[in-house]
Amino acid sequence: MFYVLHVLLWVITCYCIHPSIAVNNGTYLQQRAKLLLTEHSMRTGGKIELTDKEKTVNTVLMNHKSEEIRHGKKTGFYPAALHFFYSKAYIEDSEIYDIVRRMPKGAALSLHDVTMVDVDWLVKNVTYRPNAYMCFDQTTGKLHFHFFNTLPMSQDCPWKTLESWRLAYGNTTEFDEVLYRHMTLNVPDPHKAYPTQNIVWQKFLDALDSATGLIMYAPVFKDYFYEALKEFYEDNVQYIEVRCLLSEVYELDGTTHDKDWIVETYSEVAEKFVKDFPDFSGAKIIYSVIRNVPKVDVGLAVKEAIRLHQKYPMHFVGFDLVGQEDPGHPLLYYLNELLYPSQQNPPIDLKYFFHAGETDWEGTHIDNNLIDALLLNSSRIGHGFAITKHPEALELIREKDVPLEVNPISNQVLGLLDDLRVHPASFLLANGYPVVISSDDPSVWGATGLSDDFYEVFMGVAGENADLATMKQLALDSIRYSAMTDTEKKAAVDLFNSKWMKFIDETIQKYVKKPVEIYDEFKEVEEITGY
Amino acid sequence: MFYVLHVLLWVITCYCIHPSIAVNNGTYLQQRAKLLLTEHSMRTGGKIELTDKEKTVNTVLMNHKSEEIRHGKKTGFYPAALHFFYSKAYIEDSEIYDIVRRMPKGAALSLHDVTMVDVDWLVKNVTYRPNAYMCFDQTTGKLHFHFFNTLPMSQDCPWKTLESWRLAYGNTTEFDEVLYRHMTLNVPDPHKAYPTQNIVWQKFLDALDSATGLIMYAPVFKDYFYEALKEFYEDNVQYIEVRCLLSEVYELDGTTHDKDWIVETYSEVAEKFVKDFPDFSGAKIIYSVIRNVPKVDVGLAVKEAIRLHQKYPMHFVGFDLVGQEDPGHPLLYYLNELLYPSQQNPPIDLKYFFHAGETDWEGTHIDNNLIDALLLNSSRIGHGFAITKHPEALELIREKDVPLEVNPISNQVLGLLDDLRVHPASFLLANGYPVVISSDDPSVWGATGLSDDFYEVFMGVAGENADLATMKQLALDSIRYSAMTDTEKKAAVDLFNSKWMKFIDETIQKYVKKPVEIYDEFKEVEEITGY
Repeated sequence: MFYVLHVLLWVITCYCIHPSIAVNNGTYLQQRAKLLLTEHSMRTGGKIELTDKEKTVNTVLMNHKSEEIRHGKKTGFYPAALHFFYSKAYIEDSEIYDIVRRMPKGAALSLHDVTMVDVDWLVKNVTYRPNAYMCFDQTTGKLHFHFFNTLPMSQDCPWKTLESWRLAYGNTTEFDEVLYRHMTLNVPDPHKAYPTQNIVWQKFLDALDSATGLIMYAPVFKDYFYEALKEFYEDNVQYIEVRCLLSEVYELDGTTHDKDWIVETYSEVAEKFVKDFPDFSGAKIIYSVIRNVPKVDVGLAVKEAIRLHQKYPMHFVGFDLVGQEDPGHPLLYYLNELLYPSQQNPPIDLKYFFHAGETDWEGTHIDNNLIDALLLNSSRIGHGFAITKHPEALELIREKDVPLEVNPISNQVLGLLDDLRVHPASFLLANGYPVVISSDDPSVWGATGLSDDFYEVFMGVAGENADLATMKQLALDSIRYSAMTDTEKKAAVDLFNSKWMKFIDETIQKYVKKPVEIYDEFKEVEEITGY
Repeated sequence: MFYVLHVLLWVITCYCIHPSIAVNNGTYLQQRAKLLLTEHSMRTGGKIELTDKEKTVNTVLMNHKSEEIRHGKKTGFYPAALHFFYSKAYIEDSEIYDIVRRMPKGAALSLHDVTMVDVDWLVKNVTYRPNAYMCFDQTTGKLHFHFFNTLPMSQDCPWKTLESWRLAYGNTTEFDEVLYRHMTLNVPDPHKAYPTQNIVWQKFLDALDSATGLIMYAPVFKDYFYEALKEFYEDNVQYIEVRCLLSEVYELDGTTHDKDWIVETYSEVAEKFVKDFPDFSGAKIIYSVIRNVPKVDVGLAVKEAIRLHQKYPMHFVGFDLVGQEDPGHPLLYYLNELLYPSQQNPPIDLKYFFHAGETDWEGTHIDNNLIDALLLNSSRIGHGFAITKHPEALELIREKDVPLEVNPISNQVLGLLDDLRVHPASFLLANGYPVVISSDDPSVWGATGLSDDFYEVFMGVAGENADLATMKQLALDSIRYSAMTDTEKKAAVDLFNSKWMKFIDETIQKYVKKPVEIYDEFKEVEEITGY
C-alpha cells in the first residue's frame, strides 16, 4: 500500500503538476522514485508503517538529525564520525540522545559479565567497602583488587587496604580518578594512546582484570549484577543476555563458589530485580570460555554447559568462545569439541552464540570463524564485523535468520575501524539483514546501557534516512532474536509496546509545542530541481 | 574442473586418510570446503586458472604476503592498514611492491589532468625553466605560478621570477622542498594536519591550483602530458584515460588556446608517445566540469562535449562532473542538461563517466548520485565509495556491467576512511562486482602510477586470499572497461598478454632460486586441526 501510494504520488507529480517537465523527465523521475522506494523498503525498518503519533515524533527526531548533518557537512565536526572518546560529551548533551535514551530499546544481547556497570559505581561504592585491598604488581605494574579478612602477604603484589591507600595519597578525588582510569580505556587522544589493536586489547584486558578482583567478591557479585540490571533498566532496556566466564566467586575467608552457585545467584538476582521492577523482562546467561584454552578445556566446558542448561533451562541458555579473536584459536581448532552435542544419540540441544569475524584480517583462519559459526548452527553471531567479505556467510545469515550482534562503539574503541559511517553494518541495515544492536563492554568506554550505541547507529552507521522506524525495528528484533521462550517473547513484546506508546506520548509532550510538518524523505527531487 | 578436484580431494582426505575423524566430522569438513570454494570462485580473479609458471610466481608473492601478515598480526605494524603517509616508504621498499611495480597493470582509467606526474618533476624541471614566476597571494597566502615574458604588476600577488626567489632564499634544496609541499598533501601526521574532510579538500584544491599555473603554460602542457604517459608506462601501465577540465592553456605573450587545441594537443602527444614506445596502447580524455557551476554551464559543456566527441571520436570519449561531491550540486540538479543528448531525435551518443558516491554521508542528496549516475547510463562510476549502502545500485552495476573506479589511497587521504582493510571495495572484490583500480591524483600524495594503489588493494582491501589471479583479473578488467574500441581492446589485450608472460619469466628468474612448494590457500584445515 505504501509503495503504491508513493509511486502514484510521483506519477501525479511528474505528469500532472508539471506537464512541461513530464514530457522530458517524467519517465526518469518515475524510475528513480521506484528505485529509491525499493531501497527504502529493503532497509531495516523500511516495512514498518508509523502511526500518526509516531510520525510526529519521527519528524522531531529527523529535524534534529538533518540539522546535525547540515552542521557536520559545513563544519566538518560530526560526533558520529569521530572516535567516541572525542564525541561522548557532545553526544550525551544532544536532544537526539535524550530521545534515544528515553526510547524503549528492547534487549541487550551482547554483553559481558564484568563490563556492564558504570566503573564510577565500582570506584565510589565498591572500593569504599570494608576489607577492600589493592596492590600494584611489582613486575607488571598492573593494578589488582581483592577483598580479604586479614592482610595477605605478597612480595609480588604488596596488598594494602583501600583506606590506607587513600590516606597516603591525600587527594581522594584524584585517587579515585586513578582507579577509574585503570578500569576504563577513556583517554583524551585514543589514536596516540592506542596505535594498534594489540595495544588497545592489552589495556582492555588489564582493565577487565582489575575490575574482576572487585566484582568476584560474593557480596559485590550480587550487587554488581543487580546494579547492571538497574542501569540497563534505567536506559530503557527491558531484558539482557550476558556472556559469563563463570569464574570463581570468593568469600572473605577465601572459600569459593562453583558454577552452579554462580548461575543460581544470577537467576536469583534477576528474579529479585523483576519482582522489584515488574516492567523488566529478565536476564539470561551464556557460558563463555576464552578462545585460547586447550581443546580439552573446551571439551569439558561444552559438557558443563550441557549440564548447566539442563539444570537451569530458563536462565542458562548456551555457550560461546570469547576474547581477542585474531591471536586466539579459530573455531575449527575446537571442531571435535564443538560438534560433540550434535553427535550424541539423540543429539543434545545446546545453543551456540559464537563471537566470530571480529577482525580486519580478511582471508585468515580467524576470518573463517564466521563460516564455522554458521555451520555450527550458532543462534546469533557476536560482531560478525567481517561478514561483508563473505558472500556465503551473508547468504546463510539471511537463510537461517541468524542475526549479527553489532556493537559499533566496541569496534571503534578496539580498533577495527575509525569513522563509524563506514561500519559494515551500514550495508547490513541498508539491506535489511538480521541485526541486533548491543554495547559489548559499555563500562570500559564509559557508554551507558544501549543508548550510546543506538545513537551511533542512528546518526553514523545507518545514514540520514534511518529514522524512528529503523530504531523500532532494531528494538523489536532484539526481542525476537533473544533466547527467551516464545511465551516470554510474547510477554516482552506486549511490555515493549506499552512502553513504546508511553514514550511516544511523552516525547510529543516534551518536544512538540506546535504542529509539525511531517518529515518526508522523498521530498528531494522538488527541493533540488525546483520542479 | 577446479571445483570437482578440490571437493574430491576433501572427500578423500576426510573419509580415507583419517577414517576415525571422518565418522564424526567428514560431512562438516566437506560442507565447509564447499562453502569456501564457492566463496573463492566468486572473488575477483576466482575463475582464473593460473599456469604452472604463474603458480610459481604466485607462491613467491603469497609467501611474502603471509609473512607480512604474520608480522603485522604480531607487532600491530601493517603498512596496508596505516595511512599512506606513514606507510609509503615501507611499502615501496618491499619485495611485494617490487613485484607489483614490475607487473603489467593494464589501464589507469581514473586520473585527472594536473595530478599525474611526480611533483618533483614540476619542481626540479618546470620551475627551473626561463620565465617562470611565482607569488604568494597577499590575502589568502596561496602560492601561484605563471610563465610571463615580462614582469606583470600585481599588488595582490607580487610576482618575482623563480630565479630571484631562489637567490633570495639561499638554500635551494629547502626552497624546492617548500614548493613540493605546496603542491602535495604529504605531512608527517595527516590525522593532525587534516582533522576533517573539508580541511584536506581545501588543501588539496590549493595544491591543484598551484600546480595548474605551471602546467597550463603551453610548452609545459605538452611536456607534462608526455611525462605523465612516461611515468605510467614505466610503472607498467599501458593505457590511460584522463578527466580533463580543458582549462585555457596560455602562451608566454598571454594568448590562450581553446578546447580544440587542447584536445588536439593531447592526441598529438599521445600519438607521439605511442610512436616512441610502441608497447603502449595510448590515451583518451574525458571532459569534466566542476560540480558546482550553474546549470547553464553544464548545459553548454554537454553540448561542447558532443561536438568534441564528434570531431575527435578516437581521443575524446565522454563527459563527467568532478570536484568535492558533498558540497557540490547533485547530478539530479543538472537533470535537464544531462538528459539532453538522449532526448534528441535521434538520440546523440555521449558517454558519461560520472564520479558518484564519493561520500560518507549516506542518505543525503549527494549519496543518491550513485542512483542517478546509473540511471543516466554512466559507463563507469568514479569511486562509488557509498555503493554498499545502495542495494539497488549494487544490482544495477552487476546487471549493466558498470565498473566502479576504486582509488583506495585517494579515499584514505581525502578522509573517507582510515584503515583500508574496511574499504567497501573489499565487499565488491569478495563478490566479484565489476571494479577497476586507479590512483585518481597520485602526484598529490606521492604515489607512483598504479603500483601503490595495487599494493594497497592486494595487501589491504582484498584480504589474505587475494593473489596473482586477483591482480591479473583487475588488470584485464581495466582494459575491458576502458573506452577503447573493440579493435583497440583486442590489440591491448594481446599486448598485455605478451607483457604478462615476460613479467612471469622475469619474476621467476629474479626470485626463484630453488623449487617452491606451490601455495594452496585451502591447506587450512590440516594446519589447524592436525587431522
